[in-house]
Amino acid sequence: MRFGVNYTPRVGWFHHWLDFSASDVARDFDAIASLGVDHVRVFPMWPVVQPNRTLIRRAPLDDLERMLELAAERGLDVSVDALQGHLSSFDFVPAWLTSWHRRGMFTDPAVVASTADYVRAVASACAGHPNLLAVTVGNEVNQFTGTVHPEPYPATQADVTAWLDAMIGAARAGAPDALALHACYDATWYDDTQPFTPAHAATAGDLTAVHSWVFNGTAQRHGPDAFETVAHARYLVEISRAFHVDPDREVWMQEVGAPRNVLPEGSVVPFLERTVAELAGAPRLFGITWWCSHDVSRSLADFPELEYDLGLIDEHGRVKPAGLALRDAVAEARARRPALLETASPELILDLDAVGGRAALAPGGEFWKRYMQTARTAGHPRVVLADS
Amino acid sequence: MRFGVNYTPRVGWFHHWLDFSASDVARDFDAIASLGVDHVRVFPMWPVVQPNRTLIRRAPLDDLERMLELAAERGLDVSVDALQGHLSSFDFVPAWLTSWHRRGMFTDPAVVASTADYVRAVASACAGHPNLLAVTVGNEVNQFTGTVHPEPYPATQADVTAWLDAMIGAARAGAPDALALHACYDATWYDDTQPFTPAHAATAGDLTAVHSWVFNGTAQRHGPDAFETVAHARYLVEISRAFHVDPDREVWMQEVGAPRNVLPEGSVVPFLERTVAELAGAPRLFGITWWCSHDVSRSLADFPELEYDLGLIDEHGRVKPAGLALRDAVAEARARRPALLETASPELILDLDAVGGRAALAPGGEFWKRYMQTARTAGHPRVVLADS
Repeated sequence: MRFGVNYTPRVGWFHHWLDFSASDVARDFDAIASLGVDHVRVFPMWPVVQPNRTLIRRAPLDDLERMLELAAERGLDVSVDALQGHLSSFDFVPAWLTSWHRRGMFTDPAVVASTADYVRAVASACAGHPNLLAVTVGNEVNQFTGTVHPEPYPATQADVTAWLDAMIGAARAGAPDALALHACYDATWYDDTQPFTPAHAATAGDLTAVHSWVFNGTAQRHGPDAFETVAHARYLVEISRAFHVDPDREVWMQEVGAPRNVLPEGSVVPFLERTVAELAGAPRLFGITWWCSHDVSRSLADFPELEYDLGLIDEHGRVKPAGLALRDAVAEARARRPALLETASPELILDLDAVGGRAALAPGGEFWKRYMQTARTAGHPRVVLADS
Repeated sequence: MRFGVNYTPRVGWFHHWLDFSASDVARDFDAIASLGVDHVRVFPMWPVVQPNRTLIRRAPLDDLERMLELAAERGLDVSVDALQGHLSSFDFVPAWLTSWHRRGMFTDPAVVASTADYVRAVASACAGHPNLLAVTVGNEVNQFTGTVHPEPYPATQADVTAWLDAMIGAARAGAPDALALHACYDATWYDDTQPFTPAHAATAGDLTAVHSWVFNGTAQRHGPDAFETVAHARYLVEISRAFHVDPDREVWMQEVGAPRNVLPEGSVVPFLERTVAELAGAPRLFGITWWCSHDVSRSLADFPELEYDLGLIDEHGRVKPAGLALRDAVAEARARRPALLETASPELILDLDAVGGRAALAPGGEFWKRYMQTARTAGHPRVVLADS
């Protein structure tokens, strides 16, 4: 089981790509390595690398390569996301896709081809580095479509299938030896209007990424210390695995964090410990990558309040109690994992149509309740699709 | 009368701010200086300098200062625009003003205060340079409001008054010895739904900037070689002057260019020569700044076709016939200007309400026809508001 953190640069947040400092990154990676992790997930910014549709700048790709080297020097592997895209409430979209140039991000042929060029260029820049772990198409790319976004780029499920084929293909073409995958926020699992579907998540690329955020209604509904709240990450792993076609396919808990808007400070460490403990018994779990390494500096404006305090390390570089707790929780999970994997799991049948679609999977939904009831009393069930 | 060009960097277009090369800028300025101009108008990119609302990066301001030095070494003064913002069909807006963070660009108090911080920072960076000529709030800032924009930021006329007060104030606070002004596209003059009004153009800041683009219907209506087409720039100078309260206030033809979508190649040089000749007799004309220095490289995608060929210098650095023609036309205009200014002008009364509002000023409108008829037969009239 891999254990890592999502790297949020301490100085300048992701705007550091505009003022890349190898010494800042080195210092941040020193702090991250001290947590005992084996990898970082990193996030180039799309409009910085590709400001014009046919201009892919070399300088930030060189900086990305330097980042991989600095990670390697500290024993860290690197997972790279390409299309950012969406980060902590901000949407970074190149000018050639907005306003007068607004076109189908997922559907316009020229846009899709050029976006694939970008993904391939990012992957290719990293491909020569032995510590490259994975290339993700982008962070929660499904944020840009569906009915929730204020300015969505429309896409059908078929559009998404074609788009993912192009993007996963580009990632593989650029970095043939790395894992290729895509990442979605949980509307994929919980919202029937979302054209990125469970089937996309469970079949595109080399493994399934899930992102667990209990501010999605879970913690509000059940409270910060409830079983449902600390089991949410594991639940996502189990429902995503149900949609796998390949029984050997793995799931990556690529983002999970402790949002203070729903977790009082006293609940943060227990939430971490219990979330990791619940995950520890999940079969085919590739790894856990915590969000995030560093707090967002209070000198930066306009983040939702909860985004400032998600770090394992504070904005001054000090490891927070959560950082130490996570290090210990992961060590314990690793030790307990072999025994947990030998425990028999109950089985739970999921008939998605019969249960009312994806809304039944969402916090408080009919299937959600059934799962949590089973998990609480008999251990986390293995979810099996009714028609499989 | 000042004569300059709008500087469109030959390599990377305005994306050069991400990869600033002093040697590239020096080479571009050498070519521009060879045209006999006395100034350049330059355009930092807002999201590059201020990627977070409370983060104003130093590096691009240092680059801007280097640009002023390189201009000074070639005898060029510099006019700097702050809020880009809108450039050649692309809108560059920071992520903190779009999507989930979309707020009133002209109305949200925090946004306005932070935008003023940016304008002041740009002005302040330039203030110590003796060749700083002017600070413009931004290029055609009224592009972002009114009814034409696909995603407008709403503003009332009163909002614009307050916003301009803040921005002109910020420019003056940053660079007390430079001219401070704002710039609009011609909807200000021609479109009654546009909250940036003639009165704003004619009273805010130290002089009035006008931008003349005959693809606005003028050349389509009258043809590439018609009097109306070559007189359009002068017309804008005269109608803007009508709204002046201060009789000594000057008008700056800050952008005028020869768009090939409405001008066949054979009409370009005559258009240049005649446009400058018509402008030459305009009283209180501060200067003419041609759009633009360099063609946009064909390696960059998605520009409207007309935007690629507006340069006086081609994408390989060769001065085009239009560049040589403009140099000669300006020399001739300077020589003829004293005599032209002594010629008596007919007077034309403009009662904007009676004539039907700003639409009457637009190409083909009632007042437009009256003006052009007078200008063609008796010389460019002095326009006087009915109630003044």
